[in-house]
Amino acid sequence: MMNLRKELDQRGMAKVGEELHRFAADLYPICRSITGDGIRRTMAMIQARIPLQLSEVPTGTPVFDWTVPKEWNIRDAYIASSDGKRVADFRTCNLHVLNYSTPVHATMSLSELKPHLFTIPEHPDWVPYRTSYYKESWGFCLPHHQMLALEDGDYEVCIDSTLDDGHLTYGECYLPGQSTDEVLISCHACHPSLANDNLSGLTVATSLAQFLSGRDLRYSYRFLFIPGTIGAITWLARNRETVGHIRHGLVLTCIGDAGGFHYKKSRRGNAEIDRAAACVLNHCGESAETAEFSPYGYDERQYCSPGFNLPVGCLMRSIWGSCPEYHTSADDLDFIRPLQLAGSLRVCTAIVDVLENNRRYRNLSPYGEPQLGRRNLYCSTGGDTIATDINGRLWVLNFSDGEHSLLDIAERSGLSFSLISEAADLLYQNGLLSVVPDDGGGEKTLDEPTHDTLQHS
Amino acid sequence: MMNLRKELDQRGMAKVGEELHRFAADLYPICRSITGDGIRRTMAMIQARIPLQLSEVPTGTPVFDWTVPKEWNIRDAYIASSDGKRVADFRTCNLHVLNYSTPVHATMSLSELKPHLFTIPEHPDWVPYRTSYYKESWGFCLPHHQMLALEDGDYEVCIDSTLDDGHLTYGECYLPGQSTDEVLISCHACHPSLANDNLSGLTVATSLAQFLSGRDLRYSYRFLFIPGTIGAITWLARNRETVGHIRHGLVLTCIGDAGGFHYKKSRRGNAEIDRAAACVLNHCGESAETAEFSPYGYDERQYCSPGFNLPVGCLMRSIWGSCPEYHTSADDLDFIRPLQLAGSLRVCTAIVDVLENNRRYRNLSPYGEPQLGRRNLYCSTGGDTIATDINGRLWVLNFSDGEHSLLDIAERSGLSFSLISEAADLLYQNGLLSVVPDDGGGEKTLDEPTHDTLQHS
Amino acid sequence: MMNLRKELDQRGMAKVGEELHRFAADLYPICRSITGDGIRRTMAMIQARIPLQLSEVPTGTPVFDWTVPKEWNIRDAYIASSDGKRVADFRTCNLHVLNYSTPVHATMSLSELKPHLFTIPEHPDWVPYRTSYYKESWGFCLPHHQMLALEDGDYEVCIDSTLDDGHLTYGECYLPGQSTDEVLISCHACHPSLANDNLSGLTVATSLAQFLSGRDLRYSYRFLFIPGTIGAITWLARNRETVGHIRHGLVLTCIGDAGGFHYKKSRRGNAEIDRAAACVLNHCGESAETAEFSPYGYDERQYCSPGFNLPVGCLMRSIWGSCPEYHTSADDLDFIRPLQLAGSLRVCTAIVDVLENNRRYRNLSPYGEPQLGRRNLYCSTGGDTIATDINGRLWVLNFSDGEHSLLDIAERSGLSFSLISEAADLLYQNGLLSVVPDDGGGEKTLDEPTHDTLQHS
Repeated sequence: MMNLRKELDQRGMAKVGEELHRFAADLYPICRSITGDGIRRTMAMIQARIPLQLSEVPTGTPVFDWTVPKEWNIRDAYIASSDGKRVADFRTCNLHVLNYSTPVHATMSLSELKPHLFTIPEHPDWVPYRTSYYKESWGFCLPHHQMLALEDGDYEVCIDSTLDDGHLTYGECYLPGQSTDEVLISCHACHPSLANDNLSGLTVATSLAQFLSGRDLRYSYRFLFIPGTIGAITWLARNRETVGHIRHGLVLTCIGDAGGFHYKKSRRGNAEIDRAAACVLNHCGESAETAEFSPYGYDERQYCSPGFNLPVGCLMRSIWGSCPEYHTSADDLDFIRPLQLAGSLRVCTAIVDVLENNRRYRNLSPYGEPQLGRRNLYCSTGGDTIATDINGRLWVLNFSDGEHSLLDIAERSGLSFSLISEAADLLYQNGLLSVVPDDGGGEKTLDEPTHDTLQHS
Repeated sequence: MMNLRKELDQRGMAKVGEELHRFAADLYPICRSITGDGIRRTMAMIQARIPLQLSEVPTGTPVFDWTVPKEWNIRDAYIASSDGKRVADFRTCNLHVLNYSTPVHATMSLSELKPHLFTIPEHPDWVPYRTSYYKESWGFCLPHHQMLALEDGDYEVCIDSTLDDGHLTYGECYLPGQSTDEVLISCHACHPSLANDNLSGLTVATSLAQFLSGRDLRYSYRFLFIPGTIGAITWLARNRETVGHIRHGLVLTCIGDAGGFHYKKSRRGNAEIDRAAACVLNHCGESAETAEFSPYGYDERQYCSPGFNLPVGCLMRSIWGSCPEYHTSADDLDFIRPLQLAGSLRVCTAIVDVLENNRRYRNLSPYGEPQLGRRNLYCSTGGDTIATDINGRLWVLNFSDGEHSLLDIAERSGLSFSLISEAADLLYQNGLLSVVPDDGGGEKTLDEPTHDTLQHS
Repeated sequence: MMNLRKELDQRGMAKVGEELHRFAADLYPICRSITGDGIRRTMAMIQARIPLQLSEVPTGTPVFDWTVPKEWNIRDAYIASSDGKRVADFRTCNLHVLNYSTPVHATMSLSELKPHLFTIPEHPDWVPYRTSYYKESWGFCLPHHQMLALEDGDYEVCIDSTLDDGHLTYGECYLPGQSTDEVLISCHACHPSLANDNLSGLTVATSLAQFLSGRDLRYSYRFLFIPGTIGAITWLARNRETVGHIRHGLVLTCIGDAGGFHYKKSRRGNAEIDRAAACVLNHCGESAETAEFSPYGYDERQYCSPGFNLPVGCLMRSIWGSCPEYHTSADDLDFIRPLQLAGSLRVCTAIVDVLENNRRYRNLSPYGEPQLGRRNLYCSTGGDTIATDINGRLWVLNFSDGEHSLLDIAERSGLSFSLISEAADLLYQNGLLSVVPDDGGGEKTLDEPTHDTLQHS
């Protein structure tokens, strides 16, 4: 049986966390947007680690109710006071420019400038992150106290950007498994210097893909690194006929901060991914909550739109928008933490363990309990209470009636999936269980090894 | 879309409440019973406000397991001490006489009189309300302290009543709508000077009928003003073949006191009226609870008897019997309050809004989200959190899959029905939704206006 | 209608409890095990009270995945110090010997002896109960402080036991009822001097069988007095074809201690026995909890194995293993209490009352309420609140639609089953209900007495 989570634990969480954070630091300075060279450079850095197929979709391509927008690129942007001093400088912090700003180079009075300025009065030291993808506009974001300090007078305003026909870029890493049924892992790659909100997902997803790469997997895995909303819609529009392969999916976002986990269920609400995530989080050792689906959030909005209704949930730590750092310059490299990134990867591996190992078995000795003692699967001296691992075996035996999956049994017993899965493995090795095939075909027992078990040995 | 609740709010709750209370004050002095001139006078006063069809059912008419009883009328009743002083006087308070008392005129000793006296020892200043409809008897109700103060001696006892063949009277106001499917609003009109327990329901139901009158309604509405139990049984017996038209129903009772709302579900437990009432109460801004059905209470007992099992719930404020004023002289005009009466009417209108507007829609752009921004249905600057009304639009779009009704969506989102309904209306106006017909016929979109929408314009 | 619980109450709980405790005291000294003369003597003492059919199953008989083991008998066992003093003596307390010890007679040093000694360091004065049924071994159990006090030197070790081909013994009391559908009551009889853990179940089950004996019963009742695990497996193996008769079942164990009740549901989770037990416990007047099924515990493990999945729950007081006395010499005659034993029998009779009386009725006057007043089933003076018994009648009338059983109605109303059952009986006597037959045959009313009611008269 696959036990990625145990393998990861053996690597050491501190080390894993440092690696994730270092990758985030490398990606941090890039000015990403939903199109343009920022996202291209990001894809190239991911491609250096995992096999990534890049797609370039031309401006103007219709994608469902949307159209691929013009491509945006930017070299520089600033507001300079009359003495030439830059009071807001794109080179210092790419959040200063309203993302997707049209080019402008002009001199104007403060009162003309002000309608183009965005600030956060409640957090006067932070720069907000604002965008204007679909309405042509330009603007600057700056700390509120800095805006207040602007003196009357003329300002030179320069945004050296281009907004022209070009392409929308996204990356896709496909790891084929035994089945063409897929697990989709999706994260957005369209935010500039925001660490938790995009880099945490990007880095964990990349590491998970590295970790799964080269293994003999039950499912195929598809990792999407895409611009939010328009990217997911574009990908869905181009893959409309094949999304039926997606059996389980997870949007990864905001999984590097110090908060506990939040898993938002898919629109279906009881999909296997929803139950797998809840079961893993119940036993992950960190504070964790599950929430019902809602149609506002990240790209689960698109995957769970009613025409698709895919079984895709969303794994977060602090719920986006619940902490003031969200969409501000305070979502920086200090806001994400190595151990939290590693813990998120750990939860992802444990979820993959559930998906890979979840099966239905059949107890081959279903009348009364089989005699575990003579197989050295019980305690030999009676009278004492049994240990948790023996308890797990009894649960697997009792509910392996061909109907209940290991995940069903883990849920009902309150024991961790890994304990239940290990018990099933041991009982199977001892000839007490057969595997119930998903497709209704012949059941496998240990004595009749199949292609599946041969491949593993 | 119909928004009665908003219209009512525009009238001003204080004004609406004063009108309701004034009508209650007009009705208060009448000595009503399950038959007789008291209920006839009450019907006449309601008929002055709304179109009311009166029925007179002869004594002796078999109605299911019951028989319409003799008609009771009363002119006067008193107990007088030997000096001629009235110690209990019907003219002062009609509760003094045991309702449905047979005529009596005699002089008797205190010990002969006492078995005919009813008091409330726990509330020695209040007169209890007691009845003896089906066992011929006579009696007086008086304050406990007054009973204790009666001195030995002879008393003149007079009840100037008649109990003869006659009729049972009830009133019915039918407002036809587009469909013959009906909403039933029922309240009892058989209690003498009790304000919360009968007048609150009578006045609110009358105002609701006035308010609905002359509108283009989806459903037909039937308001019943009937004597409790025997009236409902009589009406059901006479309309047994057509009660199948009742799609939703509400018994209104005890809705004028200072307590929070209690909605008692229909026997079905998950009827649309049950869900509509719960959803409205969740957002009504007053304390509110829902309770499961039980077979004791008001006329929902009859509508929800197993042979009918109609989807009829019961809206109350304080649960009858839970406050000591119940069925005593303390349930007077001070016990009901103008703002509480108005608030109850407001909840009724909001429930009607749900029933009238609840439909299933189909998202015409179900693959990914439609681009709300270019329709001015989204915020143009990205990065900030969205407002509740936009959130409502996303909920309606995501769950308008032809299966979920607006009420389903309101329940699932936790948003108010009116917000969801307004969102659906706006999306429909923008061509993003079609209406799923209840009868499986062709779906309507904005571009193909139907009889329904034409009628509205 | 049967009302065993009321009959039992009339006998007086104190007296009933004393009798139960006296029987437990008689059984206490016997050294029982899963085979041998100890369980045979126990069966004989039960047989003196109720008709018991004994089975003797030969060693070596295959029973599903198990084999009936050799028969164990023991005459004496001791550890004697070099001065001949017995430091552990089977005659003083039969727990001193590891149950199923092979014979041994040798002299050995303390260090050779120690691996054969079992103690409880946390409770140094108590003797633990340990067994070695399926791995040939020998050993002694003793108080921890006594073990620590053993001085170096040689010890004479003697276990005068036999472990030879023989038989496994169990007893079965079958009380035939009107139907061949059975209620199974099972308890284990394989523990030596342990009072709560086996004697409480044995004595209560015996008394229940005595109490039911000679009555006209709806169901047949089968009481099993068997060795734990292997006994249940043996019985199941020998009765595999007929266990389908078991409609309801209860394992009785650890029901004499001072704790509140715990009912562990059957694997099915919503079997009638599960609901009957929960309903009775909710109204039993003692603290009581219900727990979901788990595959570890007593013989419900076997009855609820997936091949059988019988509707068998387990009634306990303190959950085995939750109190330190479990499986130690402290589970003695003081640990079980007369009133607790009687209270457990009382709950068992109430559960039998539910099973015997639970039926579906049909309201013969389902349109509106029938007029209870003219049948003297209501209060004649109106206006006051109704009593609980009248409320029970309204519940039975409203939900006797042919679908809801009395247990359904008791659950939904929150009223006790006995109140509901008495209400149904009274309404049936008044011709207001018919009995809905389980088999779909003709309905019975009072006017058409059937074989069933004739038998009762």
